[in-house]
Amino acid sequence: MKIKIIITLKESVLDPQGKVVQQALNGMGFKNVNEVRQGKFFEINIDEKDQKKAEEKAHEMCKKLLANLVIEDYKIIGSQ
Amino acid sequence: MKIKIIITLKESVLDPQGKVVQQALNGMGFKNVNEVRQGKFFEINIDEKDQKKAEEKAHEMCKKLLANLVIEDYKIIGSQ
Repeated sequence: MKIKIIITLKESVLDPQGKVVQQALNGMGFKNVNEVRQGKFFEINIDEKDQKKAEEKAHEMCKKLLANLVIEDYKIIGSQ
Repeated sequence: MKIKIIITLKESVLDPQGKVVQQALNGMGFKNVNEVRQGKFFEINIDEKDQKKAEEKAHEMCKKLLANLVIEDYKIIGSQ
């Protein structure tokens, strides 16, 4: 089963990398881009057929390794 | 309008960063993780109310700056 996860900085945390991308886009003529926030994406292939169990594992992985919950949020956006 | 974009390496391209994450997860006891692929996530806030126009702009941004189409694919996963 493939689990898709997005990890983003919390809203209250500054995102200098996103800011640079925004400035680059503005400089290229995309003047109406107000904000860019960057995050990470993971696609994890788990040998587990039960969707609920696989997602539980994914939550555990996010909490233990993938996301830094002090400054980041994670979201499981799909599993198949 | 907020556009959400995921950028991933093409299937045929090796992902050493994902491999390291997979090995770390295996080492932490998540033995049934077979593969991890890592990508980037962007949330772009465009000052454009028309969803179609905003998505067109987003496609253009991906092609010109955000994604390297030689080795990467991009996908617009949502706009609101």
